[in-house]
Amino acid sequence: MTFPTHQTSVVGVSGYAGAELARLLLHHPLLRGRAPVFFGRPEEENDASTPLTDLHPQLADANGSKNLMVEPFHWKALSERGVDVVFLATPHEQSRAWVPQLLNHGVRVIDLSGAWRLEHAENRAVYKFEDADSTVTDATQRKAVYGLPELHRQQIASTQLVANPGCYATSVILALAPLMREKRIDLDRGIVCDAKSGVSGAGKTPTAKTHFMYAADNLSAYSLFNHRHTGEWLEQLNLHANEIIFTPHLLPIPRGIFSTVYVTLREQTEPEAIDACFHDFYAGSPMVRWFGARLPEIQHCVRTNYCDLGFALAPDKRRLIVVACLDNLLKGAAGQAVQNMNLMFGWPEQEGLE
Amino acid sequence: MTFPTHQTSVVGVSGYAGAELARLLLHHPLLRGRAPVFFGRPEEENDASTPLTDLHPQLADANGSKNLMVEPFHWKALSERGVDVVFLATPHEQSRAWVPQLLNHGVRVIDLSGAWRLEHAENRAVYKFEDADSTVTDATQRKAVYGLPELHRQQIASTQLVANPGCYATSVILALAPLMREKRIDLDRGIVCDAKSGVSGAGKTPTAKTHFMYAADNLSAYSLFNHRHTGEWLEQLNLHANEIIFTPHLLPIPRGIFSTVYVTLREQTEPEAIDACFHDFYAGSPMVRWFGARLPEIQHCVRTNYCDLGFALAPDKRRLIVVACLDNLLKGAAGQAVQNMNLMFGWPEQEGLE
Amino acid sequence: MTFPTHQTSVVGVSGYAGAELARLLLHHPLLRGRAPVFFGRPEEENDASTPLTDLHPQLADANGSKNLMVEPFHWKALSERGVDVVFLATPHEQSRAWVPQLLNHGVRVIDLSGAWRLEHAENRAVYKFEDADSTVTDATQRKAVYGLPELHRQQIASTQLVANPGCYATSVILALAPLMREKRIDLDRGIVCDAKSGVSGAGKTPTAKTHFMYAADNLSAYSLFNHRHTGEWLEQLNLHANEIIFTPHLLPIPRGIFSTVYVTLREQTEPEAIDACFHDFYAGSPMVRWFGARLPEIQHCVRTNYCDLGFALAPDKRRLIVVACLDNLLKGAAGQAVQNMNLMFGWPEQEGLE
Amino acid sequence: MTFPTHQTSVVGVSGYAGAELARLLLHHPLLRGRAPVFFGRPEEENDASTPLTDLHPQLADANGSKNLMVEPFHWKALSERGVDVVFLATPHEQSRAWVPQLLNHGVRVIDLSGAWRLEHAENRAVYKFEDADSTVTDATQRKAVYGLPELHRQQIASTQLVANPGCYATSVILALAPLMREKRIDLDRGIVCDAKSGVSGAGKTPTAKTHFMYAADNLSAYSLFNHRHTGEWLEQLNLHANEIIFTPHLLPIPRGIFSTVYVTLREQTEPEAIDACFHDFYAGSPMVRWFGARLPEIQHCVRTNYCDLGFALAPDKRRLIVVACLDNLLKGAAGQAVQNMNLMFGWPEQEGLE
Repeated sequence: MTFPTHQTSVVGVSGYAGAELARLLLHHPLLRGRAPVFFGRPEEENDASTPLTDLHPQLADANGSKNLMVEPFHWKALSERGVDVVFLATPHEQSRAWVPQLLNHGVRVIDLSGAWRLEHAENRAVYKFEDADSTVTDATQRKAVYGLPELHRQQIASTQLVANPGCYATSVILALAPLMREKRIDLDRGIVCDAKSGVSGAGKTPTAKTHFMYAADNLSAYSLFNHRHTGEWLEQLNLHANEIIFTPHLLPIPRGIFSTVYVTLREQTEPEAIDACFHDFYAGSPMVRWFGARLPEIQHCVRTNYCDLGFALAPDKRRLIVVACLDNLLKGAAGQAVQNMNLMFGWPEQEGLE
Repeated sequence: MTFPTHQTSVVGVSGYAGAELARLLLHHPLLRGRAPVFFGRPEEENDASTPLTDLHPQLADANGSKNLMVEPFHWKALSERGVDVVFLATPHEQSRAWVPQLLNHGVRVIDLSGAWRLEHAENRAVYKFEDADSTVTDATQRKAVYGLPELHRQQIASTQLVANPGCYATSVILALAPLMREKRIDLDRGIVCDAKSGVSGAGKTPTAKTHFMYAADNLSAYSLFNHRHTGEWLEQLNLHANEIIFTPHLLPIPRGIFSTVYVTLREQTEPEAIDACFHDFYAGSPMVRWFGARLPEIQHCVRTNYCDLGFALAPDKRRLIVVACLDNLLKGAAGQAVQNMNLMFGWPEQEGLE
Repeated sequence: MTFPTHQTSVVGVSGYAGAELARLLLHHPLLRGRAPVFFGRPEEENDASTPLTDLHPQLADANGSKNLMVEPFHWKALSERGVDVVFLATPHEQSRAWVPQLLNHGVRVIDLSGAWRLEHAENRAVYKFEDADSTVTDATQRKAVYGLPELHRQQIASTQLVANPGCYATSVILALAPLMREKRIDLDRGIVCDAKSGVSGAGKTPTAKTHFMYAADNLSAYSLFNHRHTGEWLEQLNLHANEIIFTPHLLPIPRGIFSTVYVTLREQTEPEAIDACFHDFYAGSPMVRWFGARLPEIQHCVRTNYCDLGFALAPDKRRLIVVACLDNLLKGAAGQAVQNMNLMFGWPEQEGLE
Repeated sequence: MTFPTHQTSVVGVSGYAGAELARLLLHHPLLRGRAPVFFGRPEEENDASTPLTDLHPQLADANGSKNLMVEPFHWKALSERGVDVVFLATPHEQSRAWVPQLLNHGVRVIDLSGAWRLEHAENRAVYKFEDADSTVTDATQRKAVYGLPELHRQQIASTQLVANPGCYATSVILALAPLMREKRIDLDRGIVCDAKSGVSGAGKTPTAKTHFMYAADNLSAYSLFNHRHTGEWLEQLNLHANEIIFTPHLLPIPRGIFSTVYVTLREQTEPEAIDACFHDFYAGSPMVRWFGARLPEIQHCVRTNYCDLGFALAPDKRRLIVVACLDNLLKGAAGQAVQNMNLMFGWPEQEGLE
């Protein structure tokens, strides 16, 4: 790869993650004067360009953001405009189909969809991809790095393709990784992850379940035993499907994920040892806030790129609860994507994220 | 008309007003043992029947409601099942097209849509009805009684067709009617009605504006100077369009309407006179609660069929604010429809509504 | 006990459960014409009576509820007014101190507090009761029946003192009782109960945690490993503290409890067997709705007295999730109290609750 | 005054506006490396210091904010630490008592309370100040500049005391100022301002009205005809009390103000003239976004320092609605305070606010 121009591009800027990407990139201190090239979602497109602030009025500011346009995607723009990183905020199928071509164009790709997160075909099966040419997709898959900086900082820095993690997966993996590395969990007893997410996680398309009348004043569980993020923690944590249960719930709030993770420890453990285990693991991770015995809450992490972690230990010193909170559109999507971009550009990973 | 069998039917039970109608009719003390005949929305229909509790799980009870079916509409059912009152919770166009035929079948109709509320063609224009045969629709329109019991109790009792009022219109008309009858308002100064409604008023179809992410944590105004309920207060209160401004806002709550109505009185008036004006007007109206100088709030009327009214008078004793609160799905729709049914059957109008 | 006069009384009508009790008793079909005697919370009292509808404007109706007064408590009123059932919606300490005297007055008591729910002193320790005379309190405790009709229908009918269950406890016990009776759970693997409750569960006193700014757009966990309802399921289900984890969370909704209960079955089990287990257990329980494989949601049970139950079984047929939903102010408090009253009066237990 | 050190201080950092001030000042690009001196609310204080992130966990970041302390106020700190601007986020009475002393210490003050906003004693009467020495307070009052940059940019730059405007007042004044300057409003017809605010406007102290159960799913009106911000628009716009009605409502959202302002124009006016009137007035005001005929909504301005304005004109071209939206904690409080600080320091007024 050549020396980066630091020209970014966002494909699919019309959705919630797209709006957050636009906001973060427009205000990124090391990208001053270099607005991203904005493209709409390919499937929504017509020939006309639209002002960015028509799609997202909250992005209008006094510095000329009113003149920014969202254009229909065209391949030529990538080279003409010197784009070197493309953020894909597109549906899974779209990302699966496009990424090989994008890589051929020499750009680096940070894909926010689930298209390239899973190494093993059986885990990918949930997406029902219909790959046109499996030689190509297999080769592309091998290039993909799972974009969780706290686990794969170095590989991210040097790859051409980052598969940005799922929002739930980020919370589950960050809650468990330190305990897994130290082999503290009695896996025979099973891990229970009871997760709750705000409505933005369901996307911008109006459906019966995103209707205010359905979501407000309600709580519901969904995708029991078959959520499509499941493969991510199985692969990243080397878990077997029978060792972990994951149940997502729909919260009546706009954004935020709260994962309550229950594990049984192999042996009686003092709280200080738990504290040290997490503290040490995340010592070099500026975007994880370890709360120790103070439990995190959604209100403190929402609209930030932090994943907040805390714990409570039963009097028997065997049963442990880890709570992970994050903003599903930031640490769970657009913020983490920018964190990955920072790593790819050799910048401090928290740049533009505080 | 023949002696009523008290067999009711609801067409379009799948929506929010439909669900409330089903609940009210199933629990109506004078309709015991006589469940309504439930039909779906004609435009949603296929050939199969659906259990009512699949559409509305909250209606399941220990008394066999699980066996109630929602059937595809068919004309024969009306006579075979001895239906004498049909509630239409259908789109405006549907009601406009069907009501003449329903009247020909000899049933009485309570139409919850806007199809028959407006006497004057210029007020109806907003609905853009394309009447197939204006002789028929004109004749039908002349039969229609505007179903606001507090104004038209007697005509409702004897008509074959009740046009159930709009939710906003109910609040505006009930707030102003006592003052208008006593000619207390200086109409040259103009009436301002600033109204706020919960999201159920926008219907069950998922749209960008009923998406939780749009409605929650937000407030927006819409339909400025052209809301389609406007004709209702113009006709019912004999107002000219220039004498009243109506601005609806979308509240981030499921249900409830709050109308803040500003008028200037012709002359200085003591609060006691305002109190007496409303108190006397609604003395025989069990479904209006006059709060006097205590202002109503949405929380107190929601899930009831009451319209709550209260007032505040400026120190100059000329400027008056009347607040009207109601539940848009009950006093603003299904509850008022049952109140009208009660009147048509010669029952106390609050029966089954407390 | 003498033949009941069916004169009820509510002590502590000012809170949320008190308001629901008032509403249910005023509309109870078998209590027509016999309004409860309403008393305030002893600790809030002064000498004056207050109109009930000043405390709870939503209770105003056209049938004279405006004339109902909430009086300062006085013992004479119990005999003078012929009260035979007293509902206590008072703080735990108050109930602990008063009930022995109330029983001496010959009235029956349904206590909504935690004062008399727990048989074993070690479980009661969490309440830190300072009993003046342990002979008296021990004797009273022995009379108390845990007021969960689905488990103790017959004892409730004949006791003088019902200890109405905690809201969380009702959901947890009803979710587990059928499986426990059939000894299907592998208790060595541990039960995880992840519960979520609306804000009304925290009571009416304004605190930092019931402030709208804290609760809205947020989720938090609290009382980890030490919630005071814990003793209820330990005693009712014969569980050891190490066999079950309970984690409550504060939901940004007014009312409703959603408990996600994770168990491991002793052996592989077909879904049909789970279905039969619950179906049979609750066959005679009109206030439990068994949803089978359709998961309940808060929106369907809220403002009803039902506890809704459903399940999901993992592909391994060993790991089972049971979901229990109920309205914490109804099946979790006031509704269940009326259900208990119905049993005490020999009436159908769902009377006045649908 | 001497050349500024740019050392800021916040007194009363524990409240909602205090938290926003802390956030804005900590991230202000021209205040790098110069954290504010944080003091608690004098009335809450004890002798100990508290970590800032204990009060506001959301402020924890990777750059050492964990070490910031909130200290008990002491006068010496002002000189020892070289403070030259003090933000007061304190109760009105506190600000009224302290500001004269602060000015004597040579610091500049931006007071967020209502203490110094009103020039005329009759408008201040609503606050019931008990000034110890009216010579001192009168002299101080004369120094105060009403801190609305869009009206008083130059005076703010050079004063020692800024009285930061009320949140409602900011929205009302910005909605009307352009029309008032061009004398377009028929004041005899009266101005109606129907305003709605999120719950944070009521402050952090838990009360019956800030309880989630009161505010959620509700709307209520309050302070009719006597809100204490009234004097601000009377003085700033030269209006008489009889010429404007202001009605605030409590919205079930955390933050945001939406003011619907109704005026009658002196003469028929084309929409283009309205557009030009506002466009020109705010041409040099970077923190006002003029939406023209597109109406603003709370969701687009919340968490920004913008006041968004838009309009709708009746077909009669005389009746005009102006909508103003802002975030009550930013443009309505802390953000505007920082905007004023920028002006006092000679910096671009939007610095650190986008």
